[in-house]
Amino acid sequence: MSKKASIGVTGLAVMGRNLARNLARHGHTVALHNRSEERTRKLVEEFGDEGEFIPAYSAQEFVNALERPRQIVIMVKAGDPTDAVIEEFAPLLEQGDVIVDAGNAHFADTRRREKALRERGLHFVGTGVSGGEEGALHGPSIMPGGSKASYQSLGPLFEDISAKVDGEPCCTHIGADGAGHFVKMVHNGIEYADMQLIAESFDLLRGAAGYGPAEIAEVFKTWNTGRLDSYLIEITSEVLKHVDPVSGKPFVDVVEDAAEQKGTGRWTVQIGLDLGVPISGIAEAVFARSLSGSKPLREAARGLGGPSRAPLSGAALETFADDVEQALYASKVVAYAQGFNQIQAGAAEYGWDIDLGRVAAIWRGGCIIRAKFLNDITSAYADEPTLPTLLTSGGFRKAVEDAQDSWRSVISTAVRLGIPTPGFATALSYYDGLRADRLPAALVQGQRDFFGAHTYRRVDREGSFHTLWATDDRSEVDA
Amino acid sequence: MSKKASIGVTGLAVMGRNLARNLARHGHTVALHNRSEERTRKLVEEFGDEGEFIPAYSAQEFVNALERPRQIVIMVKAGDPTDAVIEEFAPLLEQGDVIVDAGNAHFADTRRREKALRERGLHFVGTGVSGGEEGALHGPSIMPGGSKASYQSLGPLFEDISAKVDGEPCCTHIGADGAGHFVKMVHNGIEYADMQLIAESFDLLRGAAGYGPAEIAEVFKTWNTGRLDSYLIEITSEVLKHVDPVSGKPFVDVVEDAAEQKGTGRWTVQIGLDLGVPISGIAEAVFARSLSGSKPLREAARGLGGPSRAPLSGAALETFADDVEQALYASKVVAYAQGFNQIQAGAAEYGWDIDLGRVAAIWRGGCIIRAKFLNDITSAYADEPTLPTLLTSGGFRKAVEDAQDSWRSVISTAVRLGIPTPGFATALSYYDGLRADRLPAALVQGQRDFFGAHTYRRVDREGSFHTLWATDDRSEVDA
Repeated sequence: MSKKASIGVTGLAVMGRNLARNLARHGHTVALHNRSEERTRKLVEEFGDEGEFIPAYSAQEFVNALERPRQIVIMVKAGDPTDAVIEEFAPLLEQGDVIVDAGNAHFADTRRREKALRERGLHFVGTGVSGGEEGALHGPSIMPGGSKASYQSLGPLFEDISAKVDGEPCCTHIGADGAGHFVKMVHNGIEYADMQLIAESFDLLRGAAGYGPAEIAEVFKTWNTGRLDSYLIEITSEVLKHVDPVSGKPFVDVVEDAAEQKGTGRWTVQIGLDLGVPISGIAEAVFARSLSGSKPLREAARGLGGPSRAPLSGAALETFADDVEQALYASKVVAYAQGFNQIQAGAAEYGWDIDLGRVAAIWRGGCIIRAKFLNDITSAYADEPTLPTLLTSGGFRKAVEDAQDSWRSVISTAVRLGIPTPGFATALSYYDGLRADRLPAALVQGQRDFFGAHTYRRVDREGSFHTLWATDDRSEVDA
Repeated sequence: MSKKASIGVTGLAVMGRNLARNLARHGHTVALHNRSEERTRKLVEEFGDEGEFIPAYSAQEFVNALERPRQIVIMVKAGDPTDAVIEEFAPLLEQGDVIVDAGNAHFADTRRREKALRERGLHFVGTGVSGGEEGALHGPSIMPGGSKASYQSLGPLFEDISAKVDGEPCCTHIGADGAGHFVKMVHNGIEYADMQLIAESFDLLRGAAGYGPAEIAEVFKTWNTGRLDSYLIEITSEVLKHVDPVSGKPFVDVVEDAAEQKGTGRWTVQIGLDLGVPISGIAEAVFARSLSGSKPLREAARGLGGPSRAPLSGAALETFADDVEQALYASKVVAYAQGFNQIQAGAAEYGWDIDLGRVAAIWRGGCIIRAKFLNDITSAYADEPTLPTLLTSGGFRKAVEDAQDSWRSVISTAVRLGIPTPGFATALSYYDGLRADRLPAALVQGQRDFFGAHTYRRVDREGSFHTLWATDDRSEVDA
């Protein structure tokens, strides 16, 4: 009997190919399959010496090449193609076999598929994979959902090929059914927020302090040696220092300022709304991208009046970069706090047992938002697994409190000079809203009761009440 | 042959009952039907002398009581109950008859239902009705979608019972299939934003200027004589001056500060995200309500450090109420501009021919956001039907430009004192983003190209490009 593969990958575009190579490089025998044979052959031809591959040219051949329980990783375009591939393989599999969807599925689709396959006796593992093509090859952050049983066989393989931080694999079993794809979605939402905050920092350093891209690259480089140490800050510095070889201008000045998006940021906000979690940092980042891409609107609005004030000088200029660092840090804590609260809410809604500290831990390597900062989040949840918000955990609380004078000053400067900072501003509003003794929501409840008899609660006793607004004495009735 | 009814209403809870009474009071013979007979009998008993009603105690009897084309208004809970009632009546109807859903359906459901009924030869008219119980009885703002043909017979009846402003009915044919429910949804979203901005104004007058609720009621009363003249400002003044008869305290101080919501604000944001329209004003309003209702979170965050600065005094205090009026006005223009842009985007996406000026016109009466201000929006779109944004139309442009010093100063004050103003702040960020020559979205595109090879466009020539970031010379390639 010929040697069998411990895992198979179907869908050998760049992500699938790199995952397969990563597995083979770690000593696992990998069965390969692709709709068109060409890609399968090419992979073996080009990278066959990296490890043991078993190319298969039909679905049946692919399934036959696998050890039991069979583990098939699907890496195709999310949506209908995923369903099509599942339907191609599921009938060929047996009780206890495992289908992994490593694409960017919406977690609701993953829940639907997991349920359908569970009823057919198969494990379905929706898995978030972050880190792009390079990550897939050299070690991504991996977020598998699905059953605990499936993680028994799959976990060691995935941990093996994941990124490592301090020797720990950046892979953990997130929770049942769609939990992995849900957490990956929030990861991407946080990435949007983080990138927006960095973009605002750049815009402020340029517009308020008058620094050029090369100088700002240096500022980011310095920040990258401190608490903001992260992949995104590092590459920001690289992008900003890059000079366009064509025009000789700073690269950032020749790129069209219309940010694109692929949809997971939008999903995160839509789901956040369904869950009733205020994730304004992610929302503002998504809106900022939409706004930047609204060409006719921006064309039409060009020349709308702004403030005519001089940029910073003197002492204010001298401390400005430090102030922005504080504002960025504090806003970033808020954005992450909101994102982790969304995971908490998703876990409560869908019955997932998610260890938030472990989530932070496996984001420390491999993925786009990898950062030193995530060590602190890991510790915060390790200390208090049911922490209501990162903002109240010791270290973050102090850091944000200490940062707030700078944070407030930077936003005031932006407001005064007409530099848009939707991310910084919403983060501060959230912070101030969260800590407020009383919010004007009481007035909103009064308005709602006035025009729609929607009733209200009182601070001094239980029950629902309605004021008879149309009567002379406006008396109150139980509702 | 006995007299027939020109329209029928099924579902006689308070909204349906009041619509039926409104129709009868205007001289129309109204057939009545309800799942339980009790409500039908009671309506005739209590209000039979208001006009001509034909009570019906079975679906067939109800249908038989109607003139051709039959027009049936369904006023039941949105969702499955609507489908159930449609299925009860559709089989009894004939080619060309009209079913109206006057409930709060999601426009996507309305599109689905319209298509299904059209294929069965029936008209289905999803209709937004705004104004609550009082409006339904005395004149609501009515937003019917569906076919133009259905509006031939239905329009005159609905215009008859709608609110009137300067003699004009607050009812117009919005557009095909789900257009009516879509526009009603955005109406509600704008209502959220407007209420949030008013709430922030109150909070600022109290927290920064130290005014009490009764004083603030007077401020709103004064504002209501100017450009902010509107139903919401009027009732805000009423709510704020109300003293709780139980405790003798200001009413707004005994109401729990946790705002509730019924879902249409959330829908508006979710659809705005799908359409790629930045509607941050509505989003922040929805998030502010969620935050206010997040009790355990707010409990945990109580005591987070804020700024320790003295509230306003002297000259700043003297002009503050005026400054807040300017900030409220400018933020409100932004919120409405965003909402109308969402309608524009919806119309483009779903092929609706929506006259934005007419939409503004029919919101001037009957509905919650009725306001003098809507006259100006009506004129702006009458002057330029394809206006890219309200912010660039003559009157609004000047008003917002004139308001901006105050607007900026109020937000700075809020930021400095730690008073959350997510609505004001996002409105200003949107304004500053819209008018920016360059946005830092160029950096975001650079980051995306760096970590994901997502490519970028250039300002100086056509095409998509990718920089080979991993190479030494970082050369650029066509993508």
